[in-house]
Amino acid sequence: MGQVSAVRASVTPLRVIAHPKGDIRHALKASEASFQGFGEAYFTTILPGQTKGWKKHRRMHMNLVVVQGEVAFHVHDDRSGVTETFVLSTDASTYGRLHVPPGLWMAFGGRSDAPSLVLNLASIEHDPDEAVNVELETYPIGSAA
Amino acid sequence: MGQVSAVRASVTPLRVIAHPKGDIRHALKASEASFQGFGEAYFTTILPGQTKGWKKHRRMHMNLVVVQGEVAFHVHDDRSGVTETFVLSTDASTYGRLHVPPGLWMAFGGRSDAPSLVLNLASIEHDPDEAVNVELETYPIGSAA
Repeated sequence: MGQVSAVRASVTPLRVIAHPKGDIRHALKASEASFQGFGEAYFTTILPGQTKGWKKHRRMHMNLVVVQGEVAFHVHDDRSGVTETFVLSTDASTYGRLHVPPGLWMAFGGRSDAPSLVLNLASIEHDPDEAVNVELETYPIGSAA
Repeated sequence: MGQVSAVRASVTPLRVIAHPKGDIRHALKASEASFQGFGEAYFTTILPGQTKGWKKHRRMHMNLVVVQGEVAFHVHDDRSGVTETFVLSTDASTYGRLHVPPGLWMAFGGRSDAPSLVLNLASIEHDPDEAVNVELETYPIGSAA
């Protein structure tokens, strides 16, 4: 399992278990270090070539799993000025979970020809007052955009 | 929101929120009645024309959302002998969450031409000792299979 820092985003590789009637895909267990409570699960679609962001959560821990397609997640730390990019997909080699603790900026772009779908297992329920949005031009996306 | 009985399966319709860069799809909030704690989230694929089951959980509450394709969920109560069938899909008209409390048998079949994908937001972590499996022939599937 991946190590979890209070201030950095990190990816935990996830298992895909073969089954003759259809595979099983892990997402998140309550015993894992990146689990910080359950508030809400929801899906967000990202269309090909589109990027959503930047958004910063003040309290929410996000645990993100790509369910369909391929997505580039950009995580920007405004203290260090660094943007890190994590690419996840449904392919077993890049199937995993991205944990984004509160206080970091996130933007994400669809990298498939078809819409991509992301599950967020969020530590709190949706609350517009705890999230901040700024324009996509505010921070560098990095070369993988 | 749908009413939750201790002994019956029930469907809660879920919202799909339009967004120009890709829709948002609700799944489960901790404040909803069918939320019975978070143990694990995982996905299960069901291939076209295949049916997985029957399985009965002794302790796990399942909250099931179809993420891809269309799935017929069959829930059998061995006290009444009744099998109920619930069809969920990603189409807004049948997008919803099926809550299955412990003590009921479940089987589910893929009804798309392509593989279907189901998210289970389970109240406990996977534990083979709390689940019982019997052959698909044991109980009637019903006409929607």
